[in-house]
Amino acid sequence: MISDIDTIIEAALKEDMPDGDITSESVIPPESISRAIILAKEKGILAGIDVAACVFAKIDPHVIFTNKLEDGSMLSCGDTIACLKGNSISLLKGERTALNFLQRMSGIATLTRKFVQGLEGFQTRILDTRKTTPVLRNLERYAVQVGGGTNHRLNLSDMVLIKDNHLKIVGSISEAVKRARNKVAPSVKIEVETTDLEEVKEAVRAGADMIMLDNMSPERMKEAVSWVDGRIPLEASGNVNLAMLRKIASSGVDFISVGSLTHSYDSLDISLEFR
Amino acid sequence: MISDIDTIIEAALKEDMPDGDITSESVIPPESISRAIILAKEKGILAGIDVAACVFAKIDPHVIFTNKLEDGSMLSCGDTIACLKGNSISLLKGERTALNFLQRMSGIATLTRKFVQGLEGFQTRILDTRKTTPVLRNLERYAVQVGGGTNHRLNLSDMVLIKDNHLKIVGSISEAVKRARNKVAPSVKIEVETTDLEEVKEAVRAGADMIMLDNMSPERMKEAVSWVDGRIPLEASGNVNLAMLRKIASSGVDFISVGSLTHSYDSLDISLEFR
Amino acid sequence: MISDIDTIIEAALKEDMPDGDITSESVIPPESISRAIILAKEKGILAGIDVAACVFAKIDPHVIFTNKLEDGSMLSCGDTIACLKGNSISLLKGERTALNFLQRMSGIATLTRKFVQGLEGFQTRILDTRKTTPVLRNLERYAVQVGGGTNHRLNLSDMVLIKDNHLKIVGSISEAVKRARNKVAPSVKIEVETTDLEEVKEAVRAGADMIMLDNMSPERMKEAVSWVDGRIPLEASGNVNLAMLRKIASSGVDFISVGSLTHSYDSLDISLEFR
Amino acid sequence: MISDIDTIIEAALKEDMPDGDITSESVIPPESISRAIILAKEKGILAGIDVAACVFAKIDPHVIFTNKLEDGSMLSCGDTIACLKGNSISLLKGERTALNFLQRMSGIATLTRKFVQGLEGFQTRILDTRKTTPVLRNLERYAVQVGGGTNHRLNLSDMVLIKDNHLKIVGSISEAVKRARNKVAPSVKIEVETTDLEEVKEAVRAGADMIMLDNMSPERMKEAVSWVDGRIPLEASGNVNLAMLRKIASSGVDFISVGSLTHSYDSLDISLEFR
Amino acid sequence: MISDIDTIIEAALKEDMPDGDITSESVIPPESISRAIILAKEKGILAGIDVAACVFAKIDPHVIFTNKLEDGSMLSCGDTIACLKGNSISLLKGERTALNFLQRMSGIATLTRKFVQGLEGFQTRILDTRKTTPVLRNLERYAVQVGGGTNHRLNLSDMVLIKDNHLKIVGSISEAVKRARNKVAPSVKIEVETTDLEEVKEAVRAGADMIMLDNMSPERMKEAVSWVDGRIPLEASGNVNLAMLRKIASSGVDFISVGSLTHSYDSLDISLEFR
Amino acid sequence: MISDIDTIIEAALKEDMPDGDITSESVIPPESISRAIILAKEKGILAGIDVAACVFAKIDPHVIFTNKLEDGSMLSCGDTIACLKGNSISLLKGERTALNFLQRMSGIATLTRKFVQGLEGFQTRILDTRKTTPVLRNLERYAVQVGGGTNHRLNLSDMVLIKDNHLKIVGSISEAVKRARNKVAPSVKIEVETTDLEEVKEAVRAGADMIMLDNMSPERMKEAVSWVDGRIPLEASGNVNLAMLRKIASSGVDFISVGSLTHSYDSLDISLEFR
Repeated sequence: MISDIDTIIEAALKEDMPDGDITSESVIPPESISRAIILAKEKGILAGIDVAACVFAKIDPHVIFTNKLEDGSMLSCGDTIACLKGNSISLLKGERTALNFLQRMSGIATLTRKFVQGLEGFQTRILDTRKTTPVLRNLERYAVQVGGGTNHRLNLSDMVLIKDNHLKIVGSISEAVKRARNKVAPSVKIEVETTDLEEVKEAVRAGADMIMLDNMSPERMKEAVSWVDGRIPLEASGNVNLAMLRKIASSGVDFISVGSLTHSYDSLDISLEFR
Repeated sequence: MISDIDTIIEAALKEDMPDGDITSESVIPPESISRAIILAKEKGILAGIDVAACVFAKIDPHVIFTNKLEDGSMLSCGDTIACLKGNSISLLKGERTALNFLQRMSGIATLTRKFVQGLEGFQTRILDTRKTTPVLRNLERYAVQVGGGTNHRLNLSDMVLIKDNHLKIVGSISEAVKRARNKVAPSVKIEVETTDLEEVKEAVRAGADMIMLDNMSPERMKEAVSWVDGRIPLEASGNVNLAMLRKIASSGVDFISVGSLTHSYDSLDISLEFR
Repeated sequence: MISDIDTIIEAALKEDMPDGDITSESVIPPESISRAIILAKEKGILAGIDVAACVFAKIDPHVIFTNKLEDGSMLSCGDTIACLKGNSISLLKGERTALNFLQRMSGIATLTRKFVQGLEGFQTRILDTRKTTPVLRNLERYAVQVGGGTNHRLNLSDMVLIKDNHLKIVGSISEAVKRARNKVAPSVKIEVETTDLEEVKEAVRAGADMIMLDNMSPERMKEAVSWVDGRIPLEASGNVNLAMLRKIASSGVDFISVGSLTHSYDSLDISLEFR
Repeated sequence: MISDIDTIIEAALKEDMPDGDITSESVIPPESISRAIILAKEKGILAGIDVAACVFAKIDPHVIFTNKLEDGSMLSCGDTIACLKGNSISLLKGERTALNFLQRMSGIATLTRKFVQGLEGFQTRILDTRKTTPVLRNLERYAVQVGGGTNHRLNLSDMVLIKDNHLKIVGSISEAVKRARNKVAPSVKIEVETTDLEEVKEAVRAGADMIMLDNMSPERMKEAVSWVDGRIPLEASGNVNLAMLRKIASSGVDFISVGSLTHSYDSLDISLEFR
Repeated sequence: MISDIDTIIEAALKEDMPDGDITSESVIPPESISRAIILAKEKGILAGIDVAACVFAKIDPHVIFTNKLEDGSMLSCGDTIACLKGNSISLLKGERTALNFLQRMSGIATLTRKFVQGLEGFQTRILDTRKTTPVLRNLERYAVQVGGGTNHRLNLSDMVLIKDNHLKIVGSISEAVKRARNKVAPSVKIEVETTDLEEVKEAVRAGADMIMLDNMSPERMKEAVSWVDGRIPLEASGNVNLAMLRKIASSGVDFISVGSLTHSYDSLDISLEFR
Repeated sequence: MISDIDTIIEAALKEDMPDGDITSESVIPPESISRAIILAKEKGILAGIDVAACVFAKIDPHVIFTNKLEDGSMLSCGDTIACLKGNSISLLKGERTALNFLQRMSGIATLTRKFVQGLEGFQTRILDTRKTTPVLRNLERYAVQVGGGTNHRLNLSDMVLIKDNHLKIVGSISEAVKRARNKVAPSVKIEVETTDLEEVKEAVRAGADMIMLDNMSPERMKEAVSWVDGRIPLEASGNVNLAMLRKIASSGVDFISVGSLTHSYDSLDISLEFR
């Protein structure tokens, strides 16, 4: 079907290969067939194997791409992720683009998994944010899922999220929630960013469907959790790192959102080697 | 002019706003005007200010975006990068997308600058690689330049780069260079990846225009530099980190290429605040 | 900004004018200037005047298009909707395409207004559906708003709406709601289609955020309203016509959704006349 | 082949499903297989069955779509139009978009058939107009054919059609026809809109290839038919309804054009039901 | 307005400049301003000056492009066609693409003019054919007009033209014309390719609107002209060159179509020189 | 894979067939099957056979297209180039577009071959230029290769080529080369246009990688060849025709570039005939 991921893969191939691969086309015989493997060179979580397969399929539908591991697998250095067989030039053409996707997506999944493991024993879930790489949001959100995170379903058209910058203009949470409720479709949820317990109370009373606790101390969060008492979900937010994670979770919030999952991950070291 | 960067910004805006910004449109009066600033929240190098400006220009040509700093500026926490004035809803619509570009590009420039500073006193230059984010290569290459790096002009159509995977199939460097020279246009340079001095010699004799020294020790690189004696440029490559940088440079190579510049940078912390 | 409506207008112009307007270009002197008016020829509600203006702006930015009435205005036969002045050929080129948009959108607004007026005295609101003209949904939803209706914010990616066809496969409402809640982002609302009070109860207990009462009698709806008691909104659905409207509303439901608003309206009679 | 209809179907699917069908994907097991039928729920003429099939094929090429009836078939309430078997999620994804096309196209065919039947016993043929839904003209013209109508092949680039607004500027029919004949390719026909017999005569003498009789009484049309005497075809036009149809036809005109065929039809009631 | 010519110019610029003009950008100071002229270096007819202007406008709207001559002007070697002033890099970027359009279009206009002059004293007009450069048909048809030729309005969707390959399958001209008349819209003309007088007669009797005389001798054409006697236009066709032109015209045919106008012209020598 | 040639073929088909082939569709029975051949009608070199095949494949994948000759084959009048079998309407739809590509590409290959043959006995190779048909450069460059020419790999982003217009602004060759070397990637070659021996010397000393000798006499070229002595390649340029070719080559230059290969070729006469 018409799919943005297809469009992105095609654009990536065109970016890397506007007029073919002049090296491979000039030095490799066109009928040459090779075998190659995709190989993990460090520990982590695999994500994006289907995207990598799709890169080769778009270059040459005759390349045989065989997964050895599935998205979500724990990788050790030296693990074979996939085996490829096909036209040598086709394999060489796809190598870099496939790895560029695979290494980034696996990097995100790996980092997400660390946060998720940091919450072992808690019900609290890890949310991503809109701080994604422009144009690649869907791929990155998928990688967060693979790592065990939950997507904060949120582009500007999806959900109402009333933040500090809105409140500076509107004046009060109650007024902002009221305006939103009157304008948006009944299918849309309204979340409000709050900074203290009074704002939490105002938001709940105004009819918010979800509340973000922005840069609150775990103690304050606890008060909010206790006051809200399960009526609507609460999300902790604000430069969360692994160290603080369990303290925040112990406040009882439902979600912790973490921007760095998608804005500051390291690519996982993965390579493609000809046999 | 027709420009890929325009296309990417438009796609990023569409990704974040397929049907408008329902929060701002429902809570902010349409005629509301605001002032805001873009603010550095940590130390680093600014890159991408024109991309950020362009994001707002595409949303609303009446937004006034005034640079306070230029790309390449050293940022300290608290520095004002730009001032904005315009329709409040337009400012809110562009905030996240503009920052998503600006934080990533500044992250790359900041990391590149660290490598460039690590080479102070040497002639050696830092090169980027093709390990860029799919579809965003041009923006990332630009950020590398801003940080003081040199672009390794290289997509698969640009230059011949004969690597280990090619050599496994062709058999010898001499044969590979010969085939390439016969096929490609006279305007195209040929680079060869080598792993020891014998290969360097074979590549030079075969007529290579540039040589990559892959994962060689600084000592071996020194021998290569001495043997080649300035006839063609030499590039050191292979998981280079800041620690090893000066050792490699002291071998006398012309270039050191660094994949992590574009595959494992952290976004720089930058925010937009309404006044 | 990048806008789907622009794309549609451009496609419509290309559809009607793949190689120019050969009549006007061959019989009208290129420098000829004309005045024309857009004229209501029957009673109704105006919608789409900005789309009509945009059609002419795309053909020729020098055409002066002056609104005499705004969207939402009540039209009588003979009312002047807008005045145009500009190159005669440009006016002739845009005439049919502008009217094709304007007549349809005004037709929808006119029909919607009838339903809204039918509910005078009730709190109940009229919702549209996904039964819109392919590719023109946004324009039609806007026309519904102009007519006083509320958009049922609903494409397949926006909201969970569990319908009879889903239930046939899943087996029970409780199970379906549970699965949805576990999978979708916390920002997404869940609506359930029900056919009797037992199902309404099951849906509420399972945690549904909204309930559709499908083809229920007004009496049954009343029971549902009474049992739910304002906890979540209720939507009446199923081949609703003007005759039954008040009976349904008197059950106390929050919303009535009406497919015919967008699938079976008549174009309003509007024409463009040269002076 | 490159086909506009493909583009429209893809755009319609994207409109309804920018990020998948979150209901079906979260509640239905991915391996679930279902059977469903497309069912007529009122009397009419079927049109668009291939478009409906194409909707499902684009979503999932493994869906088996079996026509039970062909375009042009007379439908009764309860008739099975097609049987589908395939992945349950795929069927649910395509349901609304397929019906949105099918119901509209069948609505047009049904209305056209009424006009065509109204002319039984006459040679006169029913023509459509350019009053089509923007972007969907080709589909609507096809539905008119299915209903037994004839397409008035007419976009602004196809044929010269000199109308009242042109004549207000040019001054005379003779001059307008002369200018057109000198400018347009010899392959292009010239039609002239006329309002009385004198204009008909002037148009024929000027060399028009076809004449439109605009809002004339049947008596006047009869005079025109008699004077023209078969030299070129005559088309009656102007808010024609079913009631007046036979009177107009009895004047002997060759064609009657009817705008409402495509601007004011009702969608035919058709549904998709899982078994 | 949305225009295919815009799309083509943009594609041409992208083809020549996928990543900028690295020469000009690296050697010319970005603020440098230059003056340049476009200069005829051989005799001919100018065509395409607006396309050339548009090339520069797309690169840089601040370039001032001043026509000294209009399309259709007779050029002598040394004539100044246009003066340009603007950013030096912008002028250098557009030079080749602008000339590539201008030289080709002027080449076509020049060749067409020769054929048109060859017919001096005759009423017969020169027609182009569908033997145009793929994707550039509109520009080439325009250049034919500039040279004084008439466009044979003809793509496969525009007009019925029954040729030898159709007749081999259908069997007879009468049958082919009859089928076409029943199927196509009343607005469409029907032309028939004929090879002798009998076929001409059959075509006229069957109701053809225009006739092509394919590879007939001037004598036979004369007979056809005499028999048809002005009822419908006649077109001579078949590898016509300048030498035979007047002989053919003296047969009295209305049109002579010439494929070489658009398939075998020489580019006119035109250059851009910096002052 | 994503391929510009696909895009161009699709655009060409759409240009020629925006709404189908109304002749074939109205006169040929839809189930009719035909055989046809593509036939050379004059001497030359075949180029573009795969493009022609692709035209038919896009229209109808069931057409069987069998090459009888390969690109590069010497054609005589009457040679069968390919045999086709398939749906008659599909064959008729593709005829003109396929030939429009094939005749032009074969025309270029034929002209190139003449230049290449003119150099028999010399090492000198024929280069093409950027004087190609807008949007069709890749196809034309391929045709040059088929004819035995070498592509001058050169769009504005590929290579630095410092020409007279650059030198007028920069002032000196040495300065221009220096600026370029500092700015462009190490992978990029630098060529300089020169007009006498002093400039050649200056360019070589400045570090140019290749030199263009513009409009020099063969004697001067000889001096340049002798002075450069094989260090870097030399290219002769400037309105080269067949007559002067051997004189230029005897100077010992490595390349001669010829603009007319792609700007002033004649289409080769090739036709498609039904059997």
